[in-house]
Amino acid sequence: MDNARYIGKPVRRVDGRAKVTGRALYSDDIILPRTNYAKVLHARYAHAKILKLDTSRAKELPGVVAVYTAKDIPNNDKYFRMGSTGDTWVLAEDYVRYIGDMVAFVVAVDEKTAEEALGLIDVEYEKVPVVYDLPQAFEAADLTRADRPGNIAMPLVVSRGDVEKDFEEAEVFVTGRFTYPSLSQLHLEPNSVTASYDMGKLTVWCASQVWFHLREDISAVVGLPEKDIEIRSMCIGGAFGARNDQPLPIIASLLAVMTKSTVKMTNTRLEEFLACRPSVPMDVEITLAADKEGHFLSKKTKLLSGFGAHSSDSDAVTAIACLRADNNYKFRSVYVEGTGLYTNHTPTAAYRGFGNPQMHFALESVIDMMAEKLGMDPTELRLLNHHGPHETGIHGFIYETNGIAECMEKAKELMDWDNKKKNKRPSKGVGVASLIHCAGSRAGKPEFAGTSAIVRLESSGALTVIAGECEMGQGMTTVASQIVGEEFGVDPLTVGTLFGDTQWTPFSTGTNGSKLTSNLGNSILFACRNLKKQLCDTLRERAGKGPVVIKDGAVYSENTGEYVMSLEEAAKTACNAYNGRPFMGVGIFEPKTDLGDRTGYGNLAPAYPFGVQMAEVTVHDDGSFTVDKLVSVHDIGRVINSQMALGQVYGGVTQAMGAATTENLSINEEGVFQANTILEYKPPTVLEMPELAGDFVETVDPYGPYGAKCIAEPPVISIAPAIANAIYDAVGVRFYDVPITPERIRKRLAELKAKEQEAK
Amino acid sequence: MDNARYIGKPVRRVDGRAKVTGRALYSDDIILPRTNYAKVLHARYAHAKILKLDTSRAKELPGVVAVYTAKDIPNNDKYFRMGSTGDTWVLAEDYVRYIGDMVAFVVAVDEKTAEEALGLIDVEYEKVPVVYDLPQAFEAADLTRADRPGNIAMPLVVSRGDVEKDFEEAEVFVTGRFTYPSLSQLHLEPNSVTASYDMGKLTVWCASQVWFHLREDISAVVGLPEKDIEIRSMCIGGAFGARNDQPLPIIASLLAVMTKSTVKMTNTRLEEFLACRPSVPMDVEITLAADKEGHFLSKKTKLLSGFGAHSSDSDAVTAIACLRADNNYKFRSVYVEGTGLYTNHTPTAAYRGFGNPQMHFALESVIDMMAEKLGMDPTELRLLNHHGPHETGIHGFIYETNGIAECMEKAKELMDWDNKKKNKRPSKGVGVASLIHCAGSRAGKPEFAGTSAIVRLESSGALTVIAGECEMGQGMTTVASQIVGEEFGVDPLTVGTLFGDTQWTPFSTGTNGSKLTSNLGNSILFACRNLKKQLCDTLRERAGKGPVVIKDGAVYSENTGEYVMSLEEAAKTACNAYNGRPFMGVGIFEPKTDLGDRTGYGNLAPAYPFGVQMAEVTVHDDGSFTVDKLVSVHDIGRVINSQMALGQVYGGVTQAMGAATTENLSINEEGVFQANTILEYKPPTVLEMPELAGDFVETVDPYGPYGAKCIAEPPVISIAPAIANAIYDAVGVRFYDVPITPERIRKRLAELKAKEQEAK
Repeated sequence: MDNARYIGKPVRRVDGRAKVTGRALYSDDIILPRTNYAKVLHARYAHAKILKLDTSRAKELPGVVAVYTAKDIPNNDKYFRMGSTGDTWVLAEDYVRYIGDMVAFVVAVDEKTAEEALGLIDVEYEKVPVVYDLPQAFEAADLTRADRPGNIAMPLVVSRGDVEKDFEEAEVFVTGRFTYPSLSQLHLEPNSVTASYDMGKLTVWCASQVWFHLREDISAVVGLPEKDIEIRSMCIGGAFGARNDQPLPIIASLLAVMTKSTVKMTNTRLEEFLACRPSVPMDVEITLAADKEGHFLSKKTKLLSGFGAHSSDSDAVTAIACLRADNNYKFRSVYVEGTGLYTNHTPTAAYRGFGNPQMHFALESVIDMMAEKLGMDPTELRLLNHHGPHETGIHGFIYETNGIAECMEKAKELMDWDNKKKNKRPSKGVGVASLIHCAGSRAGKPEFAGTSAIVRLESSGALTVIAGECEMGQGMTTVASQIVGEEFGVDPLTVGTLFGDTQWTPFSTGTNGSKLTSNLGNSILFACRNLKKQLCDTLRERAGKGPVVIKDGAVYSENTGEYVMSLEEAAKTACNAYNGRPFMGVGIFEPKTDLGDRTGYGNLAPAYPFGVQMAEVTVHDDGSFTVDKLVSVHDIGRVINSQMALGQVYGGVTQAMGAATTENLSINEEGVFQANTILEYKPPTVLEMPELAGDFVETVDPYGPYGAKCIAEPPVISIAPAIANAIYDAVGVRFYDVPITPERIRKRLAELKAKEQEAK
Repeated sequence: MDNARYIGKPVRRVDGRAKVTGRALYSDDIILPRTNYAKVLHARYAHAKILKLDTSRAKELPGVVAVYTAKDIPNNDKYFRMGSTGDTWVLAEDYVRYIGDMVAFVVAVDEKTAEEALGLIDVEYEKVPVVYDLPQAFEAADLTRADRPGNIAMPLVVSRGDVEKDFEEAEVFVTGRFTYPSLSQLHLEPNSVTASYDMGKLTVWCASQVWFHLREDISAVVGLPEKDIEIRSMCIGGAFGARNDQPLPIIASLLAVMTKSTVKMTNTRLEEFLACRPSVPMDVEITLAADKEGHFLSKKTKLLSGFGAHSSDSDAVTAIACLRADNNYKFRSVYVEGTGLYTNHTPTAAYRGFGNPQMHFALESVIDMMAEKLGMDPTELRLLNHHGPHETGIHGFIYETNGIAECMEKAKELMDWDNKKKNKRPSKGVGVASLIHCAGSRAGKPEFAGTSAIVRLESSGALTVIAGECEMGQGMTTVASQIVGEEFGVDPLTVGTLFGDTQWTPFSTGTNGSKLTSNLGNSILFACRNLKKQLCDTLRERAGKGPVVIKDGAVYSENTGEYVMSLEEAAKTACNAYNGRPFMGVGIFEPKTDLGDRTGYGNLAPAYPFGVQMAEVTVHDDGSFTVDKLVSVHDIGRVINSQMALGQVYGGVTQAMGAATTENLSINEEGVFQANTILEYKPPTVLEMPELAGDFVETVDPYGPYGAKCIAEPPVISIAPAIANAIYDAVGVRFYDVPITPERIRKRLAELKAKEQEAK
């Protein structure tokens, strides 16, 4: 790509200007005439029996349009596609099972009235014991739900190779048990929806990662056929997995249809914490078995994951946590036992990394323990065990490219690793962790794994990319515009994009699994080439222009290289030749992946990104610590946009810093969140951020567009274990629980001191 | 079509429910945040020199955003595509040339401020003589414009055959000179536009018959490339030709770009009269020459038409008035001299019938005079001279079908013609007039005459017709839905339609010339068949369903006739087979027509509708008269929707009743309109409407969809001559001028009486 015009270049974001000037339209900017406003009455307790629920006073309040409880909702049990196990509901009926559980809906002519009506709903509760953490749920002394014995939402057992034999042969063992809390994705734009029901048709304005799955969900709950539902894609203020499963658009749609009106709902920040779908907390115990040279022979894993009160993406997240990370290392065998558990936590789901950060924290910590036990440099131990290109992971991943060794080399340079390991400084340490991810995991639709896109050339010369995925800040509209720009030789800023309106775009399995560049990028590339062929054929066959090619935004003779006409003239000529019909290039990408067998074995993704992350820390005498530097080096295939790719790395590393050191969305014994505001939740600010060094290893993937794989999720995956390993390197304290807080450090240092003194 | 499910049936309008419940969104319903409002300062006089134009006080008014005069407008001379002769402008500079001419624009934060600012603009005029009627303009003593000698906007001379020889051979001659005033199309929804300029892109919400030509006009005046302009089609409250050339969307767009904001403008009813584009007034003198059996041998025509202060569609209207009607009769030769003249009237343009009613009034009156002179029944004389099927008209029209003889027969039956002619009743009379029109005259784009449409099948099973034409009340979305319904066996009410958004639809030459059913209907039909083929091929080739066909809204085995799956399942299966890509059936119809040579000779239309209209009147002693009955029988090819076709006939006949008897948009010597309100303009009300009898002769056109031709314009064409001929039949007074008012009848009856007494 030496002669590339836009690919690999730091092309300016096509949506940047609208966003920084405030002209971009977000969901809450939609104001329609005659809009009603709806509010949700959430549970007062995390687990309680509803003894009485009286809405009569609320209904009498002037301005109240309707008040609904469970008995009013026809499809109350058809809530959420992810609840394929039938464990979900719209409104709570007999019991509330988490704070954020929904008891009633109020629709009123304005927000204030709706709010006031909530206060007039009379509910009497009888509290029952709260299941608030994973060991407690696993012991099943208390049940989240009477109908779910043992609190078990999902069991998963996978065994590959001869685990017992390998454990017998192994000479070195390490074991650790690690916990990872539920986290908020914390996208800054709260959920907001306007749903309008008119003459049998429902139109929904909102933000989503999965427009078409959302349409399916709405259809199931609302009872309208999908073809009578249109979701209009609004600008999206972040998602990070949270917009894979969103209650609000479904509720607003339901209320719009039930009241035959337009209903608007916007979450408060508290509701974003209480009633959305944060990440899946996990409790992971690993025993790693190696020979004395350090070759990993086998591994046993026991994983508990917290689903909350019902299932969402948590089943898929748990399955991925159980298996994905294993593929990074040349294990001979592995055994995994995973158990998804109901608790009285808000239902949990997808978060950037999709279970992979949780498992990487455990696995990459255990590997660090193994390195210490073997007396090896942790980078060496990893390099010894990593897979390389053209190899196959233990669960079936096939690596066309694998640049993890080069990532390690580059990361060591950026961290000055060898020097810092050789010359240990007091209270200072460095840590490393590797990572593997998928560029689009086969998911969503068993029917197909691919994606399709349309690139449309209109008679005016306007080029528009039409896709069913979304721009959620990750920059896909810019990548799409770069691809069109590259293929036609036009400025990417002049390319139009329509991402996600269900009436106009191809069906899509959504924006998740870091798959857009590799999957949709290909579809767009193929659509461009299909369009160019159609256009050149038409100019030759119906406009007598001879053999022509398109480059530099114009048409040239293929034989003589002479300029023939501008792209605008070509568009007009070609559309006229077909009586005004626009030209629609269609691109279809069907990755050569499989769904996996029932044990999860299979080549799930078209490509696999790898990476190495390192941390340098200083632990202060008072137990506080400073992350001094974070290094993040990624094999993402060909880099499409150098500036945006680096932006993804810095953003992801920052987000992972918060997960590793401050953020926590656990509940206490009463089922109450420990953080209900951004201030309490403590995402990192610029003050906490260390020096960041991001870089790439550009392998060229044979299937990706221009050789690209992906970047979105990987930067968050191994920051926590890198920091934990660095703290161990600094002060010899191993951390089994994130977030790693000064309080916990002080406690562990005190324990260590006590133990040392005892030993004296 | 005996087994048709929807074609030919009285299918309910698909847009009916939204319109009668008030849910349909018209242009004025659009309210965007931060909208500015603009107003136009119109000329105070119909012809005056601008001595002084001072906007400084207006600019100082708080809330005024901008005030512009001609010198501020960069492309002031690029106004309107129709002004290809370069005779047009945006704002008047040195002279105002009609009342309604524009002197200044004001943009303000609200309408009231804009209105107030208009009053603060200081203009001094010096009046100059007004050219107010056609003979005066033709004499050219006063000029409308100094730069246009003789007031001549357009000369046209066409001669076919040997006119002089045929006149020598002829034995019977009649001559008459007829006038037809300018008329308002009087669509009930005034023009309203919201234009929003943001980040280099212009979005315009409005109603139009020609979205894409309008985009060209806006581009030329505003200076933005077409690809940066999107016109969003709003519901249209009537058009009748008036929305072929609309100043308002262009002005609002210009002001939005100049102020970099959102600008809304809505015409008052007065502005609808003053500053839009009413019909072209004409003054027609015809000498008809026949042999003694009544065979028409030749005809000489002199036509003056009033363009107003500059050109719009008036040139095309004049050309059609000169030639089209001739094609209905077997002339051996004709000579036509047409002259378009500038006057100080508002520029004139298209009105349902496009010049044809003006000429039919003259020609069908002259034929009546000829019948009297020959002592023939006027229906017999017409039948003797009409063309039949498989013949070619004198200007090149080729008739695949021609049911005019059957129309005459049916009309006579409906009127009880023979009986009423035989038994003449005092003060009562009957009149007849024939008509010919085109189902889509070749126009607009020399590059192509056709049209294209997309029928889209989405994974949900939703079927949507996408076309660049418009629904303006004529019912095309219903016809489109019927065609899709017929082809797929689904309820037309479930078919979606997107007509006219320039970003999503094929380029179109617009909605005019009665062409939609015959042209676009074919494109939609072909698109359906293309889509069905794609769908069946996919189910066979990629889903293993074997040979299948689509009928009754489902998929059936072609071999066994067994049910295979629903259309919804088929859509999902087929879209999945292409990774989510929607199916887009494309239909292209390219009629076998030609543009005509420079004399206008050519087969301009894919099909020709014919018709016969009859009137029965009673003339009262006081000069007032009553139209007792109107009969309108049309050969429109296959009838697609029996109820809507009849609706078109009744609507057209009613509109023509107004033209014939009350409406008049002439100016007086001061250039002031004789009617400035609907009350003064006097369209017919239900009280004036007689018994209406409409019927059809269903020829089956070989090229039309299911054999259809068209209906839209024909019903207005020959009502005025039918009424005039009936009045002559009743009281022996020939009317040469419409409207035929009681005042004029009284005057003519008095003249007649005086002449009779003189003769005594």
